[in-house]
Amino acid sequence: MLRLIHYSLDPFSRSIRLALAECGLVVELEDERPWAWRRDFLMLNPAGTLPVLAQRQGFVLAGAYAISEYLGDTHGKLNGEGPPRNLMFPGTAIERAEVRRLVDWFHVKMDQEASRYFLEERLYQRFSDFGRNTPDTDIIKAGRANLRYHLSYVSHLLEKRPWLAGDELSFADLAAAGHFSVLDYLGEVPWEEFPRAKTWYTVLKARPSFRPLLADRLPGVPPPEIYAELDF
Amino acid sequence: MLRLIHYSLDPFSRSIRLALAECGLVVELEDERPWAWRRDFLMLNPAGTLPVLAQRQGFVLAGAYAISEYLGDTHGKLNGEGPPRNLMFPGTAIERAEVRRLVDWFHVKMDQEASRYFLEERLYQRFSDFGRNTPDTDIIKAGRANLRYHLSYVSHLLEKRPWLAGDELSFADLAAAGHFSVLDYLGEVPWEEFPRAKTWYTVLKARPSFRPLLADRLPGVPPPEIYAELDF
Repeated sequence: MLRLIHYSLDPFSRSIRLALAECGLVVELEDERPWAWRRDFLMLNPAGTLPVLAQRQGFVLAGAYAISEYLGDTHGKLNGEGPPRNLMFPGTAIERAEVRRLVDWFHVKMDQEASRYFLEERLYQRFSDFGRNTPDTDIIKAGRANLRYHLSYVSHLLEKRPWLAGDELSFADLAAAGHFSVLDYLGEVPWEEFPRAKTWYTVLKARPSFRPLLADRLPGVPPPEIYAELDF
Repeated sequence: MLRLIHYSLDPFSRSIRLALAECGLVVELEDERPWAWRRDFLMLNPAGTLPVLAQRQGFVLAGAYAISEYLGDTHGKLNGEGPPRNLMFPGTAIERAEVRRLVDWFHVKMDQEASRYFLEERLYQRFSDFGRNTPDTDIIKAGRANLRYHLSYVSHLLEKRPWLAGDELSFADLAAAGHFSVLDYLGEVPWEEFPRAKTWYTVLKARPSFRPLLADRLPGVPPPEIYAELDF
């Protein structure tokens, strides 16, 4: 049995939960609080990042980059003929590069310019023993402005493509969904202003892989009602 | 002919210059100042990150992640029998995951905790029209403390392995070298305190792929004498 050490509102953990489900893998989930920096967890992943995929008495894969590419390397879809296709990074080498450019966009750029602001200010600071209790309104304001920029970029990509990186679902969509779904849980995504992005998210949200994420509930931090609604 | 849009003291650009050379690819170099945010460059890579690998009238690959994996997908070494080996991410799927964990370590963690501090404070602020002229000493001090932590981690890895991710050179070594070589140009690496890391860097520095990096000179910012010396 594989276990995934994760945090329910961590965008990276969510992107990997989606990827595992899309690859048909069932894993045991183990909670880890990202602000706690527990010694036992750091023994497993000295970088302190989530998620970690571990096999009992076996391998330990640390971080969304290593895990997503591992799934790409090992979990293809059989087409009946030819070699199995890389499900997470589909297509030619050039098409795969486009998937990876966008994974980088969401997991590095959007993380640093938007997701982190909300997570730090609205959750981690509040839960940590050393944190502040009230969010810094300037940081939240900056996060909201940046989030709109990322939603426009998603809309721009979807003008010419059904999925973010091209004709097929890829890890780029799942990486993006990791971030947007966390911000949606916090009621921060102005979907109505970005109808094309909303349609893309609605389609993703209806996939079986998304269901467990919609059932996540953080004690003391309820999501808005529309969070789990497929028709929102 | 391929062209690489890069900045000579950008760690990501350097890791890709090393990777291209290790794969036997010759590219034309085109300078881009990371602090300039030129509109033409943003048209090519809206994320604004370096480097970008472009084929005339052909593909555009943006960012070290997309480029390094593209090289892994397309430039193997023929062993005489079996499929070509992935030069940048060698080994089994689990071994490749270890390479990627470490690439992430240097390109995300070390970048955010050390490299960026020095680049921003000692170069970008100084060259930018809107920047300060003198580095913030608190930031530099924090960068130096963090850099020592990263050097200890490198030493720790090398206790049991000849290369950072295992028995073979991989993109993990080149990613790390991108960062350390920039900080070495700025005279910031206390090599003497970390003899194991120093030996690893000496071996890398002697490879033909490293030579062009040792010849880089930034106008007005000369490197210390030992920067280009193979026996330092």
